[in-house]
Amino acid sequence: MINETYKKMLQGKSIIRELSEYATARGAEIGYDNVFDYSLGNPSVPCPQDYTDVMMGLLREEDPMAIHGYSPSLGIERVREAVADSLNRRFGMDYEAKHIFMASGAAGALAHAFRCVTSPGDEILTFAPYFPEYGPYVNLSGAVLRVVPANTENFQVNFQALEEIMNEKVMAVLINTPNNPSGIAYSTATIERLADFLERKQKEYGHDIFLISDEPYREIVFEGADAPYVSKFYDNSISCYSYSKSLSLPGERIGYVAVNPRCTDADILAVMCGQISRGIGHNCPPSSVQLAVSRVLDQTSDLSVYETNMNLLYDALVGLGFQVVKPGGTFYIFPKALEEDANAFCMKAKKYDLILVPSDNFGVPGYFRMAYCIDTEKVKRSIPVLERFVKEEYPDR
Amino acid sequence: MINETYKKMLQGKSIIRELSEYATARGAEIGYDNVFDYSLGNPSVPCPQDYTDVMMGLLREEDPMAIHGYSPSLGIERVREAVADSLNRRFGMDYEAKHIFMASGAAGALAHAFRCVTSPGDEILTFAPYFPEYGPYVNLSGAVLRVVPANTENFQVNFQALEEIMNEKVMAVLINTPNNPSGIAYSTATIERLADFLERKQKEYGHDIFLISDEPYREIVFEGADAPYVSKFYDNSISCYSYSKSLSLPGERIGYVAVNPRCTDADILAVMCGQISRGIGHNCPPSSVQLAVSRVLDQTSDLSVYETNMNLLYDALVGLGFQVVKPGGTFYIFPKALEEDANAFCMKAKKYDLILVPSDNFGVPGYFRMAYCIDTEKVKRSIPVLERFVKEEYPDR
Repeated sequence: MINETYKKMLQGKSIIRELSEYATARGAEIGYDNVFDYSLGNPSVPCPQDYTDVMMGLLREEDPMAIHGYSPSLGIERVREAVADSLNRRFGMDYEAKHIFMASGAAGALAHAFRCVTSPGDEILTFAPYFPEYGPYVNLSGAVLRVVPANTENFQVNFQALEEIMNEKVMAVLINTPNNPSGIAYSTATIERLADFLERKQKEYGHDIFLISDEPYREIVFEGADAPYVSKFYDNSISCYSYSKSLSLPGERIGYVAVNPRCTDADILAVMCGQISRGIGHNCPPSSVQLAVSRVLDQTSDLSVYETNMNLLYDALVGLGFQVVKPGGTFYIFPKALEEDANAFCMKAKKYDLILVPSDNFGVPGYFRMAYCIDTEKVKRSIPVLERFVKEEYPDR
Repeated sequence: MINETYKKMLQGKSIIRELSEYATARGAEIGYDNVFDYSLGNPSVPCPQDYTDVMMGLLREEDPMAIHGYSPSLGIERVREAVADSLNRRFGMDYEAKHIFMASGAAGALAHAFRCVTSPGDEILTFAPYFPEYGPYVNLSGAVLRVVPANTENFQVNFQALEEIMNEKVMAVLINTPNNPSGIAYSTATIERLADFLERKQKEYGHDIFLISDEPYREIVFEGADAPYVSKFYDNSISCYSYSKSLSLPGERIGYVAVNPRCTDADILAVMCGQISRGIGHNCPPSSVQLAVSRVLDQTSDLSVYETNMNLLYDALVGLGFQVVKPGGTFYIFPKALEEDANAFCMKAKKYDLILVPSDNFGVPGYFRMAYCIDTEKVKRSIPVLERFVKEEYPDR
């Protein structure tokens, strides 16, 4: 019989998807150039030419049986080695291939990490504002997601709220830095304090608490931001990565789980991921993509457009009197709305063909997200529209 | 804390993998050409040249943002349409795009199908001999796999045993035709009788019973075999397909779920698969692979080598006095061992560098599987070795 849990989920609607669909439909009416669509977090710059060249070379020169053949369930060994080497070189870690599990993007990586270190009924904490998909990702794994309220002053961790919500059933803490939707990177001070807190709680409860770090925006960090490599600060940590944003390959589904070599059972967690895969029908990233990405690991797309866009928008928003924390990375900014009801605010913006996402689904009411992974030229054109919207709709400010 | 379920699974060993690793190690000693490795079911013929050409064309000519961009969670719309069209043309079905969910290979497809039509605690029946991964695939979904004993006369369905094991908790029946490991295709008569049986039981129990058909070998069918398209015979059916074998692209992870347009809730099952994906971290097949495969849907690799190899082996095995049912497809054959203990039989064969897989893990004791997806030349050289093995080890036969 049809599964009722999944059937019921069909009634839920994604506000982001609805807004994106609206923007597309509106674009069909008035020209998409005239819709200032800040809804979707899709990379707006192409992958590095080297990626394309490497893939073409593989297809032209290599044995099809080798490049299209089965990957071992943990990933192709020399790809895992290359990932470990790159992380060690860049972040001073000491990963070996055995600590790396190749996953189909960050969603795949997180699905494995959750199941590795929690059992059904255990709690996983995350911090508002947070990526709304964490709800189904965690809850359908059998664990329970609990959200620590935001520190709206600077969107670092709200330690007082963390202390209050923390309990013995928490087996993992999930962070996302640089953060979707706030754009904030957790500072060295934040990570150190979080690590100290978790060390203390591990002792108090007498069990491991894993720090799962979701890092798809790790390579999109802006000038002056303090955005340290999380796993350097806490032994029981798992880094979940995706090349979707750094190499602009979101559709090719490639990322990894990197198990901290100093964590409990460090040598078996990646192998356990292989077992978890059997249960959830996960498959390795495509073999050809593993091979191609492994040759451009230290490259990124030209990500500079995101910082250009952020600076334009940040200055404009501040100039218009918005309360907004300056992003340290990603391609998101998360200002406070001009009225308490962020939905009402975003509905008004829609009349100006400004597509903004209200913050309620991110676990913080009263804010909105702009995904500025769009052309700089369009960002510039949107600023006078934003100005008109604010002046007309909120004349008394 | 580390999840004990998955940790315990690390103790389980795959006999197929062990034998394959032994064959590789032995090959390093004496030359792999001298090891008659019948262990692994990996395609041995390259993908069609057209696939490579199409992919090269996409990489050379198309916008990287389009070919590497996010796929919608159910798959790229025009790819889903192309799959539906191809199935309709080939099998006289009436699928629409909305019935197709693109999945990362058959493992991904099955993970979604199980969760669509069962809830935790429900039973799924399958028939021995069966692909051993069905155990973890089903059991880790929360459903319970129960195995109907084999009909060893011809490896069609053992209906008497099915009748005995059938009960109200069975929400789905899982078949695999042509079958790994037996190589047998279920005949029209078998499918019709199975459909009648399930229709009757649906009425008796007052609930749907879905037929989930795992069809990665659908395109590898030998002359004279009766191998009908399963979903034509039963409305509540879901076809799970992979291009791994037909296009020799096992590492590229592409397949689909095709929901029978006449089944209960036909219009929502594919959408439910999208919800299931969120919970299990599944991702669509890679966008570029979806696009390339959609242009070569009706092609296959040159699969004729498998039939050539089957005929050589079948004749040799019959000549040596083995009891063996002639395969109707796949690249497997499943003869009866020459002693009751198939493990002992296969251990003896190993001394002759014949790598055969004992049948116990497939749910039938006393048989062995040969995966003849290897060069025909090697199959020919293996026959005198097989002969010597039988004569020396079983002289009294």
